Amino acid sequence: MNTRFVTNVLGKVLCIEAALMLLPLLCAALAREPLKPFLIPIALLLAIGAALWRFQPAAGDVFAGEGLFCAGISWVLMSLFGAMPFVLSGDVPHVVDALFETVSGFTTTGASILSEVEGMSRGCMFWRLFTHWVGGMGVLVFIMAVLPTSGKYMHVMRAEVPGPTVGKLMPRIRATARILYGIYIALTALETVLLLLGGMSFYEALLHAFATAGTGGFSTRNASVGAFGSVYIEVVIATFMMLFGVNFNVFYLLLLRRFRSVWKSEELRIYLAVIAAAVLVIAWNIASQVGGFVQGLRYAYFQVTTIVSTTGFSTTNYDLWPELSRWVLFLLMFVGGCAGSTAGGMKLTRIVILLKAVAHDLKRQLFPARVKRVWFESRPVEVTTVTGIHAFSAAYISIFLLSGLVLSLDGFDFTTTLSASLACLSNVGPGFSLVGPAANYAMFSPLSKIVLLLEMLLGRLEIFPILFLFTPGAWKFRRKE
Amino acid sequence: MNTRFVTNVLGKVLCIEAALMLLPLLCAALAREPLKPFLIPIALLLAIGAALWRFQPAAGDVFAGEGLFCAGISWVLMSLFGAMPFVLSGDVPHVVDALFETVSGFTTTGASILSEVEGMSRGCMFWRLFTHWVGGMGVLVFIMAVLPTSGKYMHVMRAEVPGPTVGKLMPRIRATARILYGIYIALTALETVLLLLGGMSFYEALLHAFATAGTGGFSTRNASVGAFGSVYIEVVIATFMMLFGVNFNVFYLLLLRRFRSVWKSEELRIYLAVIAAAVLVIAWNIASQVGGFVQGLRYAYFQVTTIVSTTGFSTTNYDLWPELSRWVLFLLMFVGGCAGSTAGGMKLTRIVILLKAVAHDLKRQLFPARVKRVWFESRPVEVTTVTGIHAFSAAYISIFLLSGLVLSLDGFDFTTTLSASLACLSNVGPGFSLVGPAANYAMFSPLSKIVLLLEMLLGRLEIFPILFLFTPGAWKFRRKE
Repeated sequence: MNTRFVTNVLGKVLCIEAALMLLPLLCAALAREPLKPFLIPIALLLAIGAALWRFQPAAGDVFAGEGLFCAGISWVLMSLFGAMPFVLSGDVPHVVDALFETVSGFTTTGASILSEVEGMSRGCMFWRLFTHWVGGMGVLVFIMAVLPTSGKYMHVMRAEVPGPTVGKLMPRIRATARILYGIYIALTALETVLLLLGGMSFYEALLHAFATAGTGGFSTRNASVGAFGSVYIEVVIATFMMLFGVNFNVFYLLLLRRFRSVWKSEELRIYLAVIAAAVLVIAWNIASQVGGFVQGLRYAYFQVTTIVSTTGFSTTNYDLWPELSRWVLFLLMFVGGCAGSTAGGMKLTRIVILLKAVAHDLKRQLFPARVKRVWFESRPVEVTTVTGIHAFSAAYISIFLLSGLVLSLDGFDFTTTLSASLACLSNVGPGFSLVGPAANYAMFSPLSKIVLLLEMLLGRLEIFPILFLFTPGAWKFRRKE
Repeated sequence: MNTRFVTNVLGKVLCIEAALMLLPLLCAALAREPLKPFLIPIALLLAIGAALWRFQPAAGDVFAGEGLFCAGISWVLMSLFGAMPFVLSGDVPHVVDALFETVSGFTTTGASILSEVEGMSRGCMFWRLFTHWVGGMGVLVFIMAVLPTSGKYMHVMRAEVPGPTVGKLMPRIRATARILYGIYIALTALETVLLLLGGMSFYEALLHAFATAGTGGFSTRNASVGAFGSVYIEVVIATFMMLFGVNFNVFYLLLLRRFRSVWKSEELRIYLAVIAAAVLVIAWNIASQVGGFVQGLRYAYFQVTTIVSTTGFSTTNYDLWPELSRWVLFLLMFVGGCAGSTAGGMKLTRIVILLKAVAHDLKRQLFPARVKRVWFESRPVEVTTVTGIHAFSAAYISIFLLSGLVLSLDGFDFTTTLSASLACLSNVGPGFSLVGPAANYAMFSPLSKIVLLLEMLLGRLEIFPILFLFTPGAWKFRRKE
């Protein structure tokens, strides 16, 4: 492994995290809160980060292994340091809880161990929701956008950006990172303004825009977005959740005025069709319970977009809805958003290609001579891409089920265990039953919390970077130098 | 499609079913019960069957499509005629219920809509448990064993025998079918004798041997095997359930005295290791609840073998066990037995190859130049086999989840819906909560029952033959002649 390259990247990550922590520090200063919870981690991050950064990534090639390793280890380190303010401020005194909350933030899961969040210090609350925004697009992508990088970073970026394909549209890596962050910042700013128009304070508007953009799901309120009781705010946030679940390529194409390509995007069409179908089914299903179809549409639109984008805000306790609606949401938790979005889940692209591959295999069994490729977005899909998606899905389902086995040691009911495992792996946040939208993850044992936060990391980094850390080969430094 | 070939095979299937129905007819005659419930379907089967059999399968090749079509359609027809005795005798008056029970029998699921079975007529009870035995090894395989067939039947057999590979060991198809049925009959006879020694009546011993051999799970008693209250009987049945979950190639190798090959079988070793691990975990987990580790072992051994072989007998209500034990059983419901056994589920071979393929894909991402094959049983696995297993698994999980969506319309709790869908698709029978071992499937709506019986057929025939019936191309007769 190219140790110097890895060390250099990790140094940059830690320094960037120190820089990002200046914002909650400022927030704490404005609120006249103690600054130590942020000053200590910032000092540590800078000291360690600067020491690591000094290694020059001069010689040696960079392979996929380094990319996976960098992504995996930097997310673990970021989370460890990111948890410090919560512990030091006393807002989340237990280390495992603080780590859970931080990983949940960075991975944009939004699963919380806190039942009471409104008493949290302003600095920590800012940091808590800001982690969503940082984790949504990714720190490594951020580094590429702001620091001079080389083509060597391609593998690192590929390991962090969600979805099976990256960079087909935008070949140059730094330009790609800048465009992604540009769109990300613009949409976040637009949402903040729209929320301000709805009567939110700047602080809450910005924080909820952070949480929406990263498709996170933490809120400044105990009752989440429902606390504002405003249809306008709900529609704005729901619409932006939907937007942040869209492949960022689509926004780039819009910027380039290639409307025709946007219109022809198979993934986008299916995404919108899935949302529309789910909203209609649920609105019809809950109509009698919530007082009419129109009111049903309101709740359904919010809840479908929050689950499909794997955000996890809530405006009502969907766990009390009829089974059909709950089942629709359960299925959407697997699906998640589009590839190349900040949303989690298995990603719609993968699901569509999987189903096409099943049909394809049936045809192949019948007519072995006429083996064709699976087509997606008017292009044949590479065989290795299909294999990769298959392997990813098998790993996803296996991790989901095996994690549930460990969680079952805590003895909570089946629905709780199952949905907790899925909601964390898919970075949704709330699940059903004891981890429903009106509840939280506080009751799990430390072991279960560690399993759940590993699931969040596996989900956010799409399994392989984290899985790689657990393989013996990953830690053999200088092997190839 | 080679219509003549298909028609000829279907004719044989119906005639064989008529012949098989002579046994319950005899049983009804001995018990002095009305014979009409069997005479009518036998007459119909013979009339239609003989008419169809007359088509000579002379010209034209036979492709995989015909194989899938034959398997799919003959199982549907067998179930329709097989349900008639239940309706005509009044034992199961509703048509959908009778069809559910019959499909559950043939597919060796053992999910029942009956809460009270001990009052059933002897003829129908015999038929009910005999369907397990018939369906376990398969009627098409039976035809090949007893009637003169040609190599054209390879595709038909491949569509009915469970597991990703068939016939590598035994090249000649008729010999294969005979060897399979020979082993099947011998083991069934051995179990019957051992059960007789345990004090069971011949009638009950034979019927429970039928249900074990097919890994079905119907019982003559309301309390299933638990009703006998005998450790000996439980151990005999548990051990035979375990045996019938083993790849029949293993028994063939034993006959050939190739003990070394048996010992080296990777699948067998993993199968036994999984059972041992599950038994120990559950026995430890339930020890305090059932009065000690030894008593725990008794229940765990029976319950693990009944689930992993997808039989579905019960000796106790495992739904009351701690979450960990229930979760272990839940996972085993996915796994099922070995390939080439009468057990259902995804099959252990597939699970092992899937997990190896995931590890393989991780390696491929890291070192694209060193792409190797996945290895299983000391042989490299064909790439198309791996792809096929991937597609099968994706289809399996999709059917499991989407069927749950339809079942959720009935509004039962999440655990019931989820486990009902899985238990039927995997041909296990009992699930958790309202479909637990102490309950049954009576409360589902007719729509749900139809979905569940389709799942059973999909599970038993390993998806593609049934899926194929729903594709437009399947019904284009004479297309290729």
